[in-house]
Amino acid sequence: MKRLGLQTVALLSAPHIIETASIVGKKEGEGPLASYFDFILEDEYWGEKSFEKTESKIAKENMAKVLQKAKKAPGDMNYVLAGDLLNQCISSCYAIRDSEIPFIGLYGACSTMVESMAVGSMLVDGGFADNVLALTSSHFCSAERQFRFPLELGNQRPPTAQWTVTGSGAAIISNEQKGPKITNVTIGKIVDMGIKDANNMGAAMAPAAADTIYAHLNETGREPNYYDLIVTGDLGYIGGDILKDLLYKQNINIKNRYNDCGILIFDKQKQDTHAGGSGCGCCGSVFAGYLYSKLKSGEYNRILLVATGALMSPTAIQQGESIAGIAHAISIEN
Amino acid sequence: MKRLGLQTVALLSAPHIIETASIVGKKEGEGPLASYFDFILEDEYWGEKSFEKTESKIAKENMAKVLQKAKKAPGDMNYVLAGDLLNQCISSCYAIRDSEIPFIGLYGACSTMVESMAVGSMLVDGGFADNVLALTSSHFCSAERQFRFPLELGNQRPPTAQWTVTGSGAAIISNEQKGPKITNVTIGKIVDMGIKDANNMGAAMAPAAADTIYAHLNETGREPNYYDLIVTGDLGYIGGDILKDLLYKQNINIKNRYNDCGILIFDKQKQDTHAGGSGCGCCGSVFAGYLYSKLKSGEYNRILLVATGALMSPTAIQQGESIAGIAHAISIEN
Repeated sequence: MKRLGLQTVALLSAPHIIETASIVGKKEGEGPLASYFDFILEDEYWGEKSFEKTESKIAKENMAKVLQKAKKAPGDMNYVLAGDLLNQCISSCYAIRDSEIPFIGLYGACSTMVESMAVGSMLVDGGFADNVLALTSSHFCSAERQFRFPLELGNQRPPTAQWTVTGSGAAIISNEQKGPKITNVTIGKIVDMGIKDANNMGAAMAPAAADTIYAHLNETGREPNYYDLIVTGDLGYIGGDILKDLLYKQNINIKNRYNDCGILIFDKQKQDTHAGGSGCGCCGSVFAGYLYSKLKSGEYNRILLVATGALMSPTAIQQGESIAGIAHAISIEN
Repeated sequence: MKRLGLQTVALLSAPHIIETASIVGKKEGEGPLASYFDFILEDEYWGEKSFEKTESKIAKENMAKVLQKAKKAPGDMNYVLAGDLLNQCISSCYAIRDSEIPFIGLYGACSTMVESMAVGSMLVDGGFADNVLALTSSHFCSAERQFRFPLELGNQRPPTAQWTVTGSGAAIISNEQKGPKITNVTIGKIVDMGIKDANNMGAAMAPAAADTIYAHLNETGREPNYYDLIVTGDLGYIGGDILKDLLYKQNINIKNRYNDCGILIFDKQKQDTHAGGSGCGCCGSVFAGYLYSKLKSGEYNRILLVATGALMSPTAIQQGESIAGIAHAISIEN
């Protein structure tokens, strides 16, 4: 470990991401990344009686899948680090309940996949763990009900709205020497520019992403072209454009190597997902499915994964609060 | 760092708790620990228009207070680790928003004070940080509304119910060599014995506390009498009795050195708090106020602080789920 600045540490042991797994919903399985996911649901319920129970089942089965793919037992994991969007993170809690793995619960809204991998990789790098499991999930139907309106109301969605991904991402980070390595961690600060529209999360989160990417590049001394890809979690089309503009004003041009998991996961024209995908499961499943595959194949050798989170609740919005954004980043390199 | 077992690590650098701060509500300020708290509110609102905003103000002011007491600036903190009970942890998020400290959001229900100190002390021990700030909060009125019933309904509380503490605890953990040291961290596993009564949290959490204390003693090779005090976060009277019984059945007798923050903070007879105090702010304020003071004075030289959390949401309970418990422990020694 070497501290490079206030927000960034270099992990000198470079913990490896030895395996990942992803499960997504039916709609995500009809999108352009379908072939990269481990399992695609046939409906919103997967045999459960509520959307919340379905989301938890997705996380639980995905945890089992990543362990199976890595040929590991739950007892091989020193910690599971997990969180989700549901009140009191119940999707993660009930998913992990029977695992008997020591549990560090996190809340970073949609930034949770990278938050869990960031903290987990520091624990491996520091020698506190041989293996940690990072896990997150979201579900379109449970998120709409909790954050906006129940689907049964048939509300119209404005063009700035994003579509919460039904899915889960899981990754095992290990001191074993195989797979892509996590080389740097940049923990984000909260940035709040006063956006109050819960249907425009991309705009609320983009300044936090810009802040974290700026800190990361500044503290590592890297140019954007060090990376094959700088990829945010779920800014979508609107937030992604704002991010590029914000960084461009600071003389940082990421335009030719930028993408966003919320843009990648859906076909905007055919799937009517407006401003793009969002939710913990967006960055989670796109990283664990698509991006990890591209790192393994060598198509990408260096990516900066920047998961963004909107720190708000419906209660806070009703009380006139704005949406605070946060973004955490990790460098993943072959 | 030395790993002692599956759940416990010894922190060989022994990060120090250089300062703490506590703010509590009016009722807590009328209890037996009043003289140990840094600031006592005069009413439930503290000039804010909602209980949620009050809770966030308590956390924010407490963060400022611990920094002031330690003569530190926000920029001296490498990370703030925080969480609370409110949906999407908004109390912590809005409290930290303007601080510009890199933020690791946690969710461990009422176990958050120890979870934040556990993860924070590992980050200091591993060299990732010089100073971290651990923070949590709860508010009786916001918790009742969110988890049970709005106070305006005037519902009766059963004898097993606990009283959510209005308050916040904050601690700065540092590699500076002053103050009590965190010598061991035991991260808990989720334990769910099937309790479904949201008015009997103590019973739901006691098995998790027993599991973590058993693991801690087993992995460190210590007897209960190694500690001057084994203190849980908020099991209250009912949960505390269950814990003592569960451990006694495993031939571990903690009865002559056990207490609970939820028992300590209120006068059961005079304050009508039924089964005792609870909430993130219970363990937080009792540790930061009372226990830290007793460690500094040398009245206690070795304590095992075991914060307990009930991992549930009203939605989960309505859907027939049980309350999953978790407990994390840290050894604090002079």
